[in-house]
Amino acid sequence: MNINQLIKFRGKLTDEKGDSSPVVISTRVRLARNLEKYPFPGWAKKSQKREILSSCLNAVGKLAEMENGASLAIEELDDLEKQILMERRLISRELMGCKEGAGVCISRNQSLSVMVNEEDHLRIQLVEGGFHFNDLWDVVNAVDSNLEKELIYAFSRDLGYLTACPTNVGTGLRCSAMMHLPGLVLSNQMEKVVRAVNQLGIAVRGLFGEGSDASGSIFQISNQQTLGESEEEILTRLQNVLTSLLEQEKNARLVLLEKEPLKLFDKIGRAFGILNNSHLLSSAEAMKLLSFLRLATDLEILPGKFRRMVDRILIESQPGHIQYAFGGKGTPAERDEYRAWFIREQISTLPILNFDKLK
Amino acid sequence: MNINQLIKFRGKLTDEKGDSSPVVISTRVRLARNLEKYPFPGWAKKSQKREILSSCLNAVGKLAEMENGASLAIEELDDLEKQILMERRLISRELMGCKEGAGVCISRNQSLSVMVNEEDHLRIQLVEGGFHFNDLWDVVNAVDSNLEKELIYAFSRDLGYLTACPTNVGTGLRCSAMMHLPGLVLSNQMEKVVRAVNQLGIAVRGLFGEGSDASGSIFQISNQQTLGESEEEILTRLQNVLTSLLEQEKNARLVLLEKEPLKLFDKIGRAFGILNNSHLLSSAEAMKLLSFLRLATDLEILPGKFRRMVDRILIESQPGHIQYAFGGKGTPAERDEYRAWFIREQISTLPILNFDKLK
Repeated sequence: MNINQLIKFRGKLTDEKGDSSPVVISTRVRLARNLEKYPFPGWAKKSQKREILSSCLNAVGKLAEMENGASLAIEELDDLEKQILMERRLISRELMGCKEGAGVCISRNQSLSVMVNEEDHLRIQLVEGGFHFNDLWDVVNAVDSNLEKELIYAFSRDLGYLTACPTNVGTGLRCSAMMHLPGLVLSNQMEKVVRAVNQLGIAVRGLFGEGSDASGSIFQISNQQTLGESEEEILTRLQNVLTSLLEQEKNARLVLLEKEPLKLFDKIGRAFGILNNSHLLSSAEAMKLLSFLRLATDLEILPGKFRRMVDRILIESQPGHIQYAFGGKGTPAERDEYRAWFIREQISTLPILNFDKLK
Repeated sequence: MNINQLIKFRGKLTDEKGDSSPVVISTRVRLARNLEKYPFPGWAKKSQKREILSSCLNAVGKLAEMENGASLAIEELDDLEKQILMERRLISRELMGCKEGAGVCISRNQSLSVMVNEEDHLRIQLVEGGFHFNDLWDVVNAVDSNLEKELIYAFSRDLGYLTACPTNVGTGLRCSAMMHLPGLVLSNQMEKVVRAVNQLGIAVRGLFGEGSDASGSIFQISNQQTLGESEEEILTRLQNVLTSLLEQEKNARLVLLEKEPLKLFDKIGRAFGILNNSHLLSSAEAMKLLSFLRLATDLEILPGKFRRMVDRILIESQPGHIQYAFGGKGTPAERDEYRAWFIREQISTLPILNFDKLK
């Protein structure tokens, strides 16, 4: 697939049967790896980076998971194409800024992506809807083993896998979950939760990682330590924290439903009404409103089968996707018009909201 | 009719065939009159006020227009009942505060009302939907002539009819139109318009007269002078100003539709979406949103036949009406809930918005 095919094919975005769950939008497992015989990307020469890219793409391309996937050089992508990959979480914000020698391999279903010459030579990541760390870890672990047959990794018996940044040394494993926490946000508990979670060595960030904000009550929650614990220990510890967060969020929702059901119904109803009827919609407002629609599917105010549709619209109404659909052109006002139209068209297929079960 | 029958019967509110027009919601003609042999209400003794009330109600009750109407003593009404009469524009805010000796006669269709012992002994007023000063004046003039057969008015050959406040002396005639001016408000022209209109001796006030605000872009526009001109001259002058205002409003709407159609569509669409889906709605927000729905009927985004329905909801979603429908009880939050439900029920019968004609 070339980049246009990849963008239009959309992969798992269009998979209506894919997994989705309340609160945990998606989980991600990522490994950082480097080749023994080259300096880290920040110190490598251009020619070395090209060699690294070539060896890595060659090895990654042999993976069964990458059959009929895409192998892309970042320097050949324009800003809009990179933006779309970022919005689908297939590349990082950092890779967008990389030039010569940076690349990415993406599986056909757009779950697995391997970035080359980002901060490390290799960043192997798998993202799936729902709450499935162990399954994801099994796949990533197998991919890593297969790559290790082709590539010689930088590894120290004392430290484990070596990485450009000391925070990744050891397992090179970072796992994260995208959590939808409107209950905790509406009941003003997020600050307290973030403090508690940080003390357990777990980081809470906005939607697009460090420094981004948590619009739509969506947070990225990940382990901070990669050293001194086995992969299984890291996974278990993060999963325990996430399970506890999930319970706290569910509890916050129950309390809101018990104490102030109308405030919640009002927010959900208005979000639905505006999304169905607006003619100008910014991406920030769209995300805020779609967040309430996702909550509606969790609470069975809308049938749960529409949760995946909401998640897809959340991705496809972001700036890059809208601009691409608009032919890469358009003023900001024209894009806000197009976004409003795009969402109206999709949302108009939803049944009416049903609050009866909660009354 | 007693007060409960009057409130529940609703009169012209339920008349689907009554007149309604874009911009001019309703017109009102009012005469101030006093009886020759009594001091003005502010100076009259209680016993005198009772005599005035008795003679006036007796004379007014004989009018053909008052057949099967209501004759009410203000001191026998509770606050909520007075509030509802005020919201229907059947009594003034001033009369609500009057005690012994104050009363009102209201015609069955709730168009004609005669207040007794407000600021003057008699305030005769007729309100109808649409823009019809001459028809209204003919009726009020005939009512006045019929009353003059029964009552001896305070009249001076030099000054004309005498009134408690010098601003009403002469004809005692005050005419007003309730104008819906969202085009002028959205294009920030109201301040300029008010200045220009004031210089022509015409006052611009909020929905409930002096000191009230113009929520929903609804303004009350009336003559300030009552002396030195004939009734016909007063009417003609006010009608000329209103016709000019009507043209300015229509023009402002055309300019908005030409320059920023989406901003207008967006406001109308969102208003419709929120009214259809909110679960908590204050009266101020309801008025603001219903104002956009009225505009939608003017622009044929909704069929024009629904304009009267919007006007009725505008009245029936005010605080007194909602509290009455709620049995006179309820916390503010419960009333906001009831208002949201009441409006959802009504609005859900509307067809979907159709912007095609304007594109």
